[in-house]
Amino acid sequence: MAQLLPNALERAINELGRLPGVGPRTAERYAYFLLRADERTAQSMARALIALHSDVKTCPVTFALINADEDISPLYSDAARDKRMIAVVEEPLDIVALERTGQFKGTYHVLGGTISPIDGIGPEQLHIPELLKRIRNDAAEEIIIATNASVEGESTALFIQRHIQEARLNVKVSRLARGIPVGVDLEYADQITLSHALEGRRVL
Amino acid sequence: MAQLLPNALERAINELGRLPGVGPRTAERYAYFLLRADERTAQSMARALIALHSDVKTCPVTFALINADEDISPLYSDAARDKRMIAVVEEPLDIVALERTGQFKGTYHVLGGTISPIDGIGPEQLHIPELLKRIRNDAAEEIIIATNASVEGESTALFIQRHIQEARLNVKVSRLARGIPVGVDLEYADQITLSHALEGRRVL
Repeated sequence: MAQLLPNALERAINELGRLPGVGPRTAERYAYFLLRADERTAQSMARALIALHSDVKTCPVTFALINADEDISPLYSDAARDKRMIAVVEEPLDIVALERTGQFKGTYHVLGGTISPIDGIGPEQLHIPELLKRIRNDAAEEIIIATNASVEGESTALFIQRHIQEARLNVKVSRLARGIPVGVDLEYADQITLSHALEGRRVL
Repeated sequence: MAQLLPNALERAINELGRLPGVGPRTAERYAYFLLRADERTAQSMARALIALHSDVKTCPVTFALINADEDISPLYSDAARDKRMIAVVEEPLDIVALERTGQFKGTYHVLGGTISPIDGIGPEQLHIPELLKRIRNDAAEEIIIATNASVEGESTALFIQRHIQEARLNVKVSRLARGIPVGVDLEYADQITLSHALEGRRVL
């Protein structure tokens, strides 16, 4: 079969197809959109992608993402944030979700994933030793484990809790409440969520 | 609220959010994927996007997309393709879909869209005069109108048919058959598709 698309378009489709969850049809749509749009649209997107790695780095204390010209996450260095309270999250973007609540005034610690034997991620790949160090250094009083409500998130939470106990650190360990999300009818809630909601019921 | 994400990540999220159908969450996921992947992944994607405009151009005869160093679409210049048969499509990518069937040995003509008063696209924005010229120049015998099965596709098809008649061109005008797609149960076919299928029924 003769070549059906120009090489550059073919290449752009292949490249965009590497994005998570993007199949060939979606990649075609993206590439064709960029081709039809103003040349500057593609160029400015390209520049943003190139800057991603050079202008972003990881905070050496909290492992949040920070600007390359910063030393430490502003969410940690900010004197108004309570360093004795540490929310432990899986990924940097989880911080954004928690900050949007406006409820949490402590600091964050990014694990960098969850323990997942299938993906070959053991506890040694996560920033758990650094968490234990922070608990000591900052005289932390409460660790809020805010991993996802997945099997990996749950087992990682248990693993961290056990490690904190074994290290005989005098710190309260809590977890985000599991229960029925706002706006969801009881009849549509799954069995496990309902079990959690029952277990965690609160006296009015 | 303090800045939650590094500037470069914020910018990449905004840029990726311009892709069609990509909301903020998906854009975050794409940007974070590129940040976690090898630096070369983002760079090679960026290079592909930049090359899109410089290395792709439009064929002056068929309006298909071609390499910048080509003069005419190889699907037109190829002597094995029958120039007396022209399939008229809306967009360049439609050619790929038709070529995949391996059934069509004629040439293509890309309209560059459909007549759509809502989007301000009138017939003058489409490559219809060039089509009429081709019909004359190539002594075309059949025009297969392969626009989409949408309201705009249908009205564009009618418009082209009328124009060909008015220009008194001696050419057969056909349309892609409408009917029940392979693998679809009758009970799930919509009313209009079923009407088309009845109308276009074939004697066995």
